Amino acid sequence: MNYDMNSSKVNTELSKTGCYEFAADAFHCDFKHKLFLGHLGNHLLNAADFHSSDRGFGMRYLNIVNKTWVLSRLAIEMMEMPKEGETFVVETWVESVMKYFTNRNFRIVSVDGGKVYGYGRSVWALIDIVTRQPNDIMAVNDGEILKWMETDKDCPIEKGARVKIDKSAVRTSAIDTHYSDVDVNGHINSVKYIEHILDLFPLEWYQTRVVERIDIAYVAESYYGDKLHFDVSEDNEQERSIRIAKSSAGSEGEVEVCRAKIRFKMDYQ
Amino acid sequence: MNYDMNSSKVNTELSKTGCYEFAADAFHCDFKHKLFLGHLGNHLLNAADFHSSDRGFGMRYLNIVNKTWVLSRLAIEMMEMPKEGETFVVETWVESVMKYFTNRNFRIVSVDGGKVYGYGRSVWALIDIVTRQPNDIMAVNDGEILKWMETDKDCPIEKGARVKIDKSAVRTSAIDTHYSDVDVNGHINSVKYIEHILDLFPLEWYQTRVVERIDIAYVAESYYGDKLHFDVSEDNEQERSIRIAKSSAGSEGEVEVCRAKIRFKMDYQ
Repeated sequence: MNYDMNSSKVNTELSKTGCYEFAADAFHCDFKHKLFLGHLGNHLLNAADFHSSDRGFGMRYLNIVNKTWVLSRLAIEMMEMPKEGETFVVETWVESVMKYFTNRNFRIVSVDGGKVYGYGRSVWALIDIVTRQPNDIMAVNDGEILKWMETDKDCPIEKGARVKIDKSAVRTSAIDTHYSDVDVNGHINSVKYIEHILDLFPLEWYQTRVVERIDIAYVAESYYGDKLHFDVSEDNEQERSIRIAKSSAGSEGEVEVCRAKIRFKMDYQ
Repeated sequence: MNYDMNSSKVNTELSKTGCYEFAADAFHCDFKHKLFLGHLGNHLLNAADFHSSDRGFGMRYLNIVNKTWVLSRLAIEMMEMPKEGETFVVETWVESVMKYFTNRNFRIVSVDGGKVYGYGRSVWALIDIVTRQPNDIMAVNDGEILKWMETDKDCPIEKGARVKIDKSAVRTSAIDTHYSDVDVNGHINSVKYIEHILDLFPLEWYQTRVVERIDIAYVAESYYGDKLHFDVSEDNEQERSIRIAKSSAGSEGEVEVCRAKIRFKMDYQ
């Protein structure tokens, strides 16, 4: 169940930051009894959807006028992952708005607010569903989003830098996309790329490590039936850069879909 | 967020049926804006875990005494799938208890109780974590589970029948298992098999169809690194039977992991 912590039932009293409660249920946790990062990622996207929908600039409203939000960048940095049975709150707010992009931040905290699990940063583009071209965000409900900008709330993690892929990157795997990869927008779900990246590492890797930070920049959309190819470069012992390219039946060559950087830290729990 | 609808804060006043609220959040829905069946399946498993944990025979307690619940059979039959944005309640109760097995049922209803989305039936075995052998359920907390048996509540869907695999079954695919497939019990998550089965069908298949019922019988556990092989037989236009076998590095041949039967119905929404 999700709720707006600071909201009454009257829409005009919504606060700038939306707060949504989630739980690390057993069957959303990995073999170390910690929430799967992919599950957390989808919770962030869902929180973004609740926040924008409640405030007049959400996906379902936008779809009516042939527009949608597309995730352009996502960074998640975790001090600690929620453990099996723990309940946590995802806070989300709009940090800034430009013509074609908006910056949305996240803070993941315990229900009593006493423990911060981590933070997220994201960049979203508004596009036309048919042409897939960027649209002017200010034109949505007369710039409704500007009313909700929260410039005082801190998100103390670094902004994502451009991911450089070394020439030494090695093609490690290729996977087919399936029904389960496709989301409500009809393309491969943004978080599925993260899950596929995590699956590049053997189970033993996670026995002593946990993801500290992941940065992902979405370059092009991929669709059902595309094959995804993964090039991985080892930046240092705990960091990898990954390029995902797609190949499509009927088209020659490959198109870059996204670039990611993942940083692990030691974790023996 | 999950709660026991009929419970006060005092444990002794828990009712026999547990009720847990979930939502079909946008990023848990498929391209037709309906909840992924795999997500629903994990909600059922989580509901079973909440219900048993609150009543003294849950996984976390059992793990302390080196025991755990293992899902032996699962059937889900849906009149309708929850749609994006809808909130629903999973009710679960213990129908009967035998020495080594227990039958647990599910009902998926709208929050106001006015609409029944579907039902589930499941069979669980209690096993020793080390030997993986069946254990006497009555020995857990002096037969605590018997107190919670609910024999008056109806689950009007058929019990699962043994799935027969026709000799004409065709080997359609083989997949590797990854980090994301492994759950808190350290083996391949029961619901992941369902997701992999759904992924055997092309996206176009789902444009005009939805799963009406799935039956799955778990025969053996599979582990990280195992390769899963899928044999599919077409029973009729809307029904398929599927056998999943595993092959493991270092072992010759294949071992049957589970058998499933899936029935679709036409759906143009």
